Amino acid sequence: MALDKYLLAALDEANKGMEAGGVPIGSVLVIDGKIVARGHNRQSQMNSLIRHAEMDCIDRAGGLTSEELGRSIIYTTLSPCDMCAGAIIFFKIPRVIIGENLNYKGAEEYLLSRGVEVQVLNDQACIQMLQDFDRQNPGAWNKG
Amino acid sequence: MALDKYLLAALDEANKGMEAGGVPIGSVLVIDGKIVARGHNRQSQMNSLIRHAEMDCIDRAGGLTSEELGRSIIYTTLSPCDMCAGAIIFFKIPRVIIGENLNYKGAEEYLLSRGVEVQVLNDQACIQMLQDFDRQNPGAWNKG
Repeated sequence: MALDKYLLAALDEANKGMEAGGVPIGSVLVIDGKIVARGHNRQSQMNSLIRHAEMDCIDRAGGLTSEELGRSIIYTTLSPCDMCAGAIIFFKIPRVIIGENLNYKGAEEYLLSRGVEVQVLNDQACIQMLQDFDRQNPGAWNKG
Repeated sequence: MALDKYLLAALDEANKGMEAGGVPIGSVLVIDGKIVARGHNRQSQMNSLIRHAEMDCIDRAGGLTSEELGRSIIYTTLSPCDMCAGAIIFFKIPRVIIGENLNYKGAEEYLLSRGVEVQVLNDQACIQMLQDFDRQNPGAWNKG
């Protein structure tokens, strides 16, 4: 299957993060087929506990209205953790498309229980990227 | 009842936020009786969707180990929203002390369901601070 262009953009963000010395996890926010915000994990780059890819992406969506967020889709290369799931719920993002949940499975059940649509692609490029990073940087990534 | 000194520190943070033009919500993180991180809502100051008081506080706890976070207490002047509750759960902070939940009641039930201890003080100073702010800045604060 050809890679979804939005997932490809999230993967591109993950790559940017890795090139900058961070953990390769990326995310994009899409409204009406258009990417309106992009982000990647910057925990090490910003010495920040909370700067996961989804948080970074949502933080860059500052100009959006509640109505716009309410019809957005967030793509993330990796299953979102409890914090990122909480943010998705709080900002009423109704749909999450997850690159993979084999390296880490986050709060998918919680998202579903709160009415968020969740789709897991288990895309090979997403799986491989984090596995390779983990092999080359043992212990550097352990928090999702 | 004399004001809890940690809640007082959280209120002090809320005040700092207001003085800087932001919404007066503050938070401190306590370990073994010592305040190890402080934060306040900086959404307007940082033009950030995610910079709630608890997130700001947790983000400043970067040097702490999981073990330390695992015996910490987070104080917040206002009941935490879904995002902040998710962060509390993700970082395994076992106890939350909430200044008040009358101006906004967040994800307390969810915290309890995930085994987090929750205590609500409904402190008059916390209630009044946000009410006054809301009266003076109608519509500026609406997100918890």
